[in-house]
Amino acid sequence: MEIKVMQNVLKANDVFADQTAELLKAKGIRLLNLIGSPGAGKTSVLELMIPLLKDKGLRIAVIEGDCATARDAQRIAVLDVPVVQINTGNGCHLDARQIGTVMTEFPLEDIDMVIIENVGNLVCPTGFDLGADEKIAVISVTEGDDKPLKYPRIFHEAKMVILTKIDLIPYTNFSLQRFTDALRSIRQDQELFLLSCTTGEGAEKLVERFWM
Amino acid sequence: MEIKVMQNVLKANDVFADQTAELLKAKGIRLLNLIGSPGAGKTSVLELMIPLLKDKGLRIAVIEGDCATARDAQRIAVLDVPVVQINTGNGCHLDARQIGTVMTEFPLEDIDMVIIENVGNLVCPTGFDLGADEKIAVISVTEGDDKPLKYPRIFHEAKMVILTKIDLIPYTNFSLQRFTDALRSIRQDQELFLLSCTTGEGAEKLVERFWM
Repeated sequence: MEIKVMQNVLKANDVFADQTAELLKAKGIRLLNLIGSPGAGKTSVLELMIPLLKDKGLRIAVIEGDCATARDAQRIAVLDVPVVQINTGNGCHLDARQIGTVMTEFPLEDIDMVIIENVGNLVCPTGFDLGADEKIAVISVTEGDDKPLKYPRIFHEAKMVILTKIDLIPYTNFSLQRFTDALRSIRQDQELFLLSCTTGEGAEKLVERFWM
Repeated sequence: MEIKVMQNVLKANDVFADQTAELLKAKGIRLLNLIGSPGAGKTSVLELMIPLLKDKGLRIAVIEGDCATARDAQRIAVLDVPVVQINTGNGCHLDARQIGTVMTEFPLEDIDMVIIENVGNLVCPTGFDLGADEKIAVISVTEGDDKPLKYPRIFHEAKMVILTKIDLIPYTNFSLQRFTDALRSIRQDQELFLLSCTTGEGAEKLVERFWM
């Protein structure tokens, strides 16, 4: 009973996800789904990247997911891009129906890329397809180099991994070698980007990847 | 349909939680449920505290929750306390049935306190009662001082909050004042413990609280 209903929930989700994917494909818009723990630095990555991507002429819109508050949307709004905040209450992930509804509010003719910042959670958001072209894992140095092994699913599904807060490596026991080994044990073709939103180190490489 | 089944799942969970609570109460055993994001430092807190609590004569057992690997249980086992690892696969929280099963494997006559380290997740574990005497929130400096506002439920339910990685405050924009204000806006009677597992700062106060 429980399993059957969960399958129905996921199937209904996938219908909405497919609709979003088709809509955006027809308009030539890319959709990214950023997934990471609370405090991994997802919003900071957007704050750093959006001005650089705007400079290159890319027109971006953002969907922010959080249990509560519009704090992240407020941080993004000052960058002068369309942004919508979704509050999930006790919900642990964004679902495709929510994303589909937001799409009706965006000026899609004037957008090249929509970036979703999912609810801070390294587990649940991975299971819900949002119609995105790719899932991107965001993980911070301070979470520890063993996390890909302990929470493997997102690192299996996300080809692209952004490692944030690399400026804090000297003050922790984080080993980039152990982290890379852990990633590679899950997926061989992973693209790893090192980033510090404090110093800006790594931003240029990331811009090139987003802009491709 | 979906809501009704979710209610049934939670109701079934509560039956197991009540059984565990009654069993442990009858034996005079305290049960703690540690909840925090991946990398918040939950295992490090246990590594620091367990030897100190053992020195005071407290007999401890540990239940470790993770999606994959037995790494955390291995770290705890070297402290020479009973420990069981539960791997949830894609599951985002521990449930009371799992905890009840583990209790049958512990030598309860020789235990004063069982500590559960839940799956790294600031959202889902909060919704599943495990029969614990209290939920304890573990959050790290590097997650940012705004997280209680964005993920309020656990900070509403947990009277006790352990703020880890305080040795990293000088290298971040974390404000202890903003963090404390955020906590107090959710719950007035919160007990906040500051801790560095690297330097050991704050451990003695925490031992006293655990030992009470």
